[in-house]
Amino acid sequence: MTITITAFERSPDGGKGLARDTRVRWALEEVRQPYDVRLVSFRAMKEPAHLALHPFGQIPTYEEGDLVLFETGSIVLHIAERHAGLLPADPNARARAITWMFAALSTVEPPILELVTAKIVEGDKPWKEARMPLVADRIRRRLEPLAARLGDAEWLDGAFSAGDLMMVSVLLRLRPSGILDEAPSLAAYVARGEARPAYKRAFDAQFAVNTRPT
Amino acid sequence: MTITITAFERSPDGGKGLARDTRVRWALEEVRQPYDVRLVSFRAMKEPAHLALHPFGQIPTYEEGDLVLFETGSIVLHIAERHAGLLPADPNARARAITWMFAALSTVEPPILELVTAKIVEGDKPWKEARMPLVADRIRRRLEPLAARLGDAEWLDGAFSAGDLMMVSVLLRLRPSGILDEAPSLAAYVARGEARPAYKRAFDAQFAVNTRPT
Repeated sequence: MTITITAFERSPDGGKGLARDTRVRWALEEVRQPYDVRLVSFRAMKEPAHLALHPFGQIPTYEEGDLVLFETGSIVLHIAERHAGLLPADPNARARAITWMFAALSTVEPPILELVTAKIVEGDKPWKEARMPLVADRIRRRLEPLAARLGDAEWLDGAFSAGDLMMVSVLLRLRPSGILDEAPSLAAYVARGEARPAYKRAFDAQFAVNTRPT
Repeated sequence: MTITITAFERSPDGGKGLARDTRVRWALEEVRQPYDVRLVSFRAMKEPAHLALHPFGQIPTYEEGDLVLFETGSIVLHIAERHAGLLPADPNARARAITWMFAALSTVEPPILELVTAKIVEGDKPWKEARMPLVADRIRRRLEPLAARLGDAEWLDGAFSAGDLMMVSVLLRLRPSGILDEAPSLAAYVARGEARPAYKRAFDAQFAVNTRPT
């Protein structure tokens, strides 16, 4: 069955790979599954046809026959469960890899997204300058224990998994702030993720969409 | 194999059931699995023995034989995958139920936690009063589409699932703010969750811990 995902017609990041379709593209590239992409404008994302796929009016979505999924975590987990390459075979190791997916999305990403909100959405507010260091410190309080757990390992728990895919994707959002480089072992971990051929194919595919002539 | 979870020795909410062990207790009650609880003090949560279980020094954790998990989402998913009662048998319906788990944790909960941060962690900051309405509006922008999708249904997608367990648990955090009651259909949805016998058993168990004499 054909897999179809949705992505921004024009990503707000201009092709830096930070939009969440990159995570799904990366997962599909790791397991070598072809996919189609339907591009959606900001206006169309809030219209009934797209809201039927994604109640919160976002991208990406995932369609495969009768199945419609939203939420990047759920989509990546679905892909990882059905195709070899993103989850270990051992049941306990598999549960731990899934734990890192949730850790990336529930524990590490929220303060990183709050930095984006503080910078952009609240960028014109009088408290912006005074508040930014508090928000940045909340991120550091996640990075320190994450770096401690990673230690000298290549990936978070054995071989590369969907947990690493999600954690690298989340940490990538932090690079423009300079905070990622404060944790050299995590910056190197992210670079290892970006060096994977599947990541490069995913990045190039979203880059081509977001840099095409209008 | 015995299941052991960790919980706060004293929850900051004083037994309102908002600490995340309640979510795991609820899942275990739904699938009728007995469990032991090891209580952890705030100091012990940051010490090496607990950090070996939970790299971010939080509760709950889940131990079962050689398996150690953290992250509530991962623990509830693990329980739901291994015991009947929290995920539908049909593979597509199962994937959709898991999608709602991720939606609860990645899309709905972050702005709700930000409200807690704005009220408590930044409660002494000069911007508190001016900023609170912005934070509350971000929550409303999640609740409106959620209520639209729920419509008149009892649960989010067919029978009660781990997705509902997580969404109800996340929305419960919102009740003290009054924002939940602005969306009557969601308030009723939360009340249906709280009325489940398994929720009541979970609530009572955490309440007994958090209201015992010192």
